[in-house]
Amino acid sequence: MSKNITIIGLGLIGGSIALDLKKVGFAKQITGVDQSKEHENEALELGITDKIESLENAVMFADIVILATPVNVSIALLPKILDLINPNTVVMDVGSTKTSIIEAIKDHPKRKSFVPTHPMAGTEYSGPSAAFHGLFKDRVGIICNSEESSPTAVQLISELYFHLGSRLILMNAESHDEHVGYVSHLSHAISYALAVTVLEKEQNDAAIFNLAAGGFSSTARLAKSSVDMWLPIFEENSKYVLPILDLYLENLNKFKSYLENKDSQKLFDFIKTANAIKDKLQK
Amino acid sequence: MSKNITIIGLGLIGGSIALDLKKVGFAKQITGVDQSKEHENEALELGITDKIESLENAVMFADIVILATPVNVSIALLPKILDLINPNTVVMDVGSTKTSIIEAIKDHPKRKSFVPTHPMAGTEYSGPSAAFHGLFKDRVGIICNSEESSPTAVQLISELYFHLGSRLILMNAESHDEHVGYVSHLSHAISYALAVTVLEKEQNDAAIFNLAAGGFSSTARLAKSSVDMWLPIFEENSKYVLPILDLYLENLNKFKSYLENKDSQKLFDFIKTANAIKDKLQK
Repeated sequence: MSKNITIIGLGLIGGSIALDLKKVGFAKQITGVDQSKEHENEALELGITDKIESLENAVMFADIVILATPVNVSIALLPKILDLINPNTVVMDVGSTKTSIIEAIKDHPKRKSFVPTHPMAGTEYSGPSAAFHGLFKDRVGIICNSEESSPTAVQLISELYFHLGSRLILMNAESHDEHVGYVSHLSHAISYALAVTVLEKEQNDAAIFNLAAGGFSSTARLAKSSVDMWLPIFEENSKYVLPILDLYLENLNKFKSYLENKDSQKLFDFIKTANAIKDKLQK
Repeated sequence: MSKNITIIGLGLIGGSIALDLKKVGFAKQITGVDQSKEHENEALELGITDKIESLENAVMFADIVILATPVNVSIALLPKILDLINPNTVVMDVGSTKTSIIEAIKDHPKRKSFVPTHPMAGTEYSGPSAAFHGLFKDRVGIICNSEESSPTAVQLISELYFHLGSRLILMNAESHDEHVGYVSHLSHAISYALAVTVLEKEQNDAAIFNLAAGGFSSTARLAKSSVDMWLPIFEENSKYVLPILDLYLENLNKFKSYLENKDSQKLFDFIKTANAIKDKLQK
């Protein structure tokens, strides 16, 4: 049965969810809310949303509310949204960190109407114009601490992810934040540092950036990711990001000292160890 | 006029060059040489080479000899190859570092027959089966210190790069090694360290690697790159790789300390600075 869906935050993630859910008919109507008037108009023009409403109106008549704002904004908005919704409305978020948002509403009387989720997909681009069909297809979708939400709410959101084409995993929020700190947040941190470093060196020589072909551009790709989205992620997840950054720095220092000391054998072993990532990554 | 071309090293780069040059008819015949009998047979089967010869025979009757082995092997082989070639044969290499190979033959009587080059293309895969048509199309090709080679040799090699579809740049070897250290070698070093770090943490949890979608896999992609190719590159270019690694470590430590000290403004500025890489990278 198709649903009235409200999406708060009409960026890459919110917009792409809207496009997919409309296409498959899971959404009867998409109502959009965004901080930016410009984004709201753009989303209407792009067919991402059917209409724009105030937060209050958008939330009150929705079957599903999707919070797709930066994590700090979602944490601030969620209690207010839970206050406003009717008893049958289900709220989900899509943030990259999960413990802090769960903590923020843990004593809310409508806690069970909220399903914390994380679609593991994205690009380095942002805003409604970055949204596209199929972003979540065959990607992992995560629901955290499902036992704390009502079973019907969890079932509805699992159906939503099914329509996005995602492969759903249920996970504990702490474990989610820790693992995502390793595989996603660390990658972003080192990519930002790479961009800062190379820009420092190559200020006056734009041509050089094209030299490195696939190598540099794939490593530096994440450094394009929006600061508004990523600053809150790092801050919310610093508990896990900081220790993994330490371990990373330790390993990179090892690499450096092997190279410095011309210790070919150790350098060989280091790279060989890294090569094992081949077996862990798809394709 | 099509040429007899000998390729020493039938891997991703050597094999892809062969495929392209045969397709456009620039190569009359491709003769292959590889350390590995298995690679030689594979290259024959894949249509990469027309025949396999000993190094001596392969080199003696060639119009162009392409050295496509790891940089340390190329440095060791080049003097011997220059000894063997006839006066009209032109030799080019494709290594990622240029000063050391130039240094190795700077006093050779046939120095002018050698053109040091670097096609800025590749993937993380290796061996003849990794080779494909069009690898170099629209990528940058570099010729270093062209004034030290004979003009006809440089012209011939520029024609070869034209047939690969590359955009040719002439460059000083020192400057090449320095810039490539920034944009390519540093990217590989940080990707190896990322893989080592995450593998250390995620040994027992293969599923988690699929979580990070595009993010982790693009940053860790280079960590699949062959140790046989990359160990010599780091060692040959340590003069430039070590200082840029230092600067990188310094920047990543800054990032870490801003996060540790909850200095949102500095962290914001850092990420914002990194975002500027957008304007420098194509698409």
